[in-house]
Amino acid sequence: MTEMSAPTYADIEAAAGRLAGHAVRTPLIENPALNAQTGGRILLKAESLQRTGSFKFRGAYNFLSQIEPDTRQKGVVAYSSGNHAQGVAAAAQIYGVPATIVMPSDAPAMKVENTRGYGAEVVLYDRLHEKREVIAAEIAGSKNATLVPPYDHPWTIAGQGTIGLEILDQCAEIGVTPDTMLVCCGGGGLTAGVATALARVDALRVHTVEPAGYDDTLRSLEAGERQSNDMTAVSICDALLAPTPGELTFEVMRKHRVCGLVVSDDAVRHAVAYAWRNLKLVLEPGGAVTLAVILSGGLECRGKTIVATLSGGNVDADTFRDCLASN
Amino acid sequence: MTEMSAPTYADIEAAAGRLAGHAVRTPLIENPALNAQTGGRILLKAESLQRTGSFKFRGAYNFLSQIEPDTRQKGVVAYSSGNHAQGVAAAAQIYGVPATIVMPSDAPAMKVENTRGYGAEVVLYDRLHEKREVIAAEIAGSKNATLVPPYDHPWTIAGQGTIGLEILDQCAEIGVTPDTMLVCCGGGGLTAGVATALARVDALRVHTVEPAGYDDTLRSLEAGERQSNDMTAVSICDALLAPTPGELTFEVMRKHRVCGLVVSDDAVRHAVAYAWRNLKLVLEPGGAVTLAVILSGGLECRGKTIVATLSGGNVDADTFRDCLASN
Repeated sequence: MTEMSAPTYADIEAAAGRLAGHAVRTPLIENPALNAQTGGRILLKAESLQRTGSFKFRGAYNFLSQIEPDTRQKGVVAYSSGNHAQGVAAAAQIYGVPATIVMPSDAPAMKVENTRGYGAEVVLYDRLHEKREVIAAEIAGSKNATLVPPYDHPWTIAGQGTIGLEILDQCAEIGVTPDTMLVCCGGGGLTAGVATALARVDALRVHTVEPAGYDDTLRSLEAGERQSNDMTAVSICDALLAPTPGELTFEVMRKHRVCGLVVSDDAVRHAVAYAWRNLKLVLEPGGAVTLAVILSGGLECRGKTIVATLSGGNVDADTFRDCLASN
Repeated sequence: MTEMSAPTYADIEAAAGRLAGHAVRTPLIENPALNAQTGGRILLKAESLQRTGSFKFRGAYNFLSQIEPDTRQKGVVAYSSGNHAQGVAAAAQIYGVPATIVMPSDAPAMKVENTRGYGAEVVLYDRLHEKREVIAAEIAGSKNATLVPPYDHPWTIAGQGTIGLEILDQCAEIGVTPDTMLVCCGGGGLTAGVATALARVDALRVHTVEPAGYDDTLRSLEAGERQSNDMTAVSICDALLAPTPGELTFEVMRKHRVCGLVVSDDAVRHAVAYAWRNLKLVLEPGGAVTLAVILSGGLECRGKTIVATLSGGNVDADTFRDCLASN
């Protein structure tokens, strides 16, 4: 078995053991008014309440915990628009090892500040004219540091998959079997992990949700091979602007017959405002795409039992105000 | 036993039975960064995530469920700055009975809108020049409707106390015994209910938290008899502006040796902004006073295990923006 083979259910259970006492067991939130409005039973897995404000801490911490200690001591490097950045920085802080994070110069200020706040060194780059993979690889080489992949690695995927184990437990606690799973999707790490964890739930269908202009996963799943995005497209969902699905994440998503859904930025703004007003949750645009699908009628909810990830809440005040004002 | 004697633990258990399937079992949220910052273990009971956006639904629904059906059918009346209003309106909607709510003309617009949204008739009054109790009594008399007291009634108190039962369960699930309980306090219904539910936890101390200018509970507990507020005082915490502790709620709070704490509006604004930025929770000012005490150093947290209610999240966009801007 090579390191790059897909993680198993047992790998995800092992990741959950490593994360115990470090990650938050985030609540599965139900809102009677949302149920009434949609005609379904909507269960919201609020990873916005996770350590660092997004699910990315899970994959990052699981990855760092599996690096051989002498190697880990030399430090870690990552590239990220901000949530993986914070996850890696926080995990590195826990282990007491240096972290260097390559972030786009147009990343939300809060994400840059928080990443520095966890003690990481931040290197900014131009998202349209520079290749973050190249910059990160150079830094890793010069420092003998380990690159922590944002999604396309079994250790990362297994960490994100622990969300699926919690969903299984939390659904069992309230005596519910979900039939639909909605996942906010960038490179597919969260989707691949959750789909693996939930594979044993009969008749459950996993759907990715992507922002318009960045629907590479939907197109890839339909075409049967990986497709890319035009990276000059504009979207408010900074967390979900991956260029293409990962090799491994795509393989896992195909295996589990994942389907793709897309939402507009306007629907996302409305969902962010709805979450503020009705759910009392702070969501970032990329963390609200699943809710946007539910609210905009992009999925028939009537009679369904739907679990939706709310993947993060790291949003700048200006963007947040814009979302509230647009509704 | 008269109707106005203090509710027992068994009364609260009975209330929990009535609320099952109607109220949300709100999460007990832990944030590693907040723990690290305070040196304590802080567990946040997020009633902002409750149906109607505040804990008040619990007491209101429990009250309505105990009214004799023929009487309940004639309708209910309540006076409230907004959270009890929404709680009563939502409970009346579930039972399909008419509700009339007397609200101050300066209540947050969202609270008035939501109350109407649950199908209630709203009667506005001038908070400084009219007596809401008198207006509500007149309406109740003319319609043969039942007045639903906001806090000073055993049925209301027992409903709010169900939060305490959930806290006991949720602490047991994570193997924790709290030593300090912080409760957002207006008229004392939530505090009385929670103190009753938690009475069997040895060495637990319950503290009310009130906004500066409205510290009637603190002064009453210190004086051993009920004190009043100067109702012309200004506070951002609209949900906590009760004129004096209830007779019954005060008796229960004294019995359980509750202590009082006070916070400034500035500390509350900071707490609302902190909750937005760091916890990803939307809190209204009155629902953030406990967090304000923790963050402002008004309580020694080091080494303590503290449960704090976050009692509501119904805040207007303008007030919310002000809070974010002040930090």
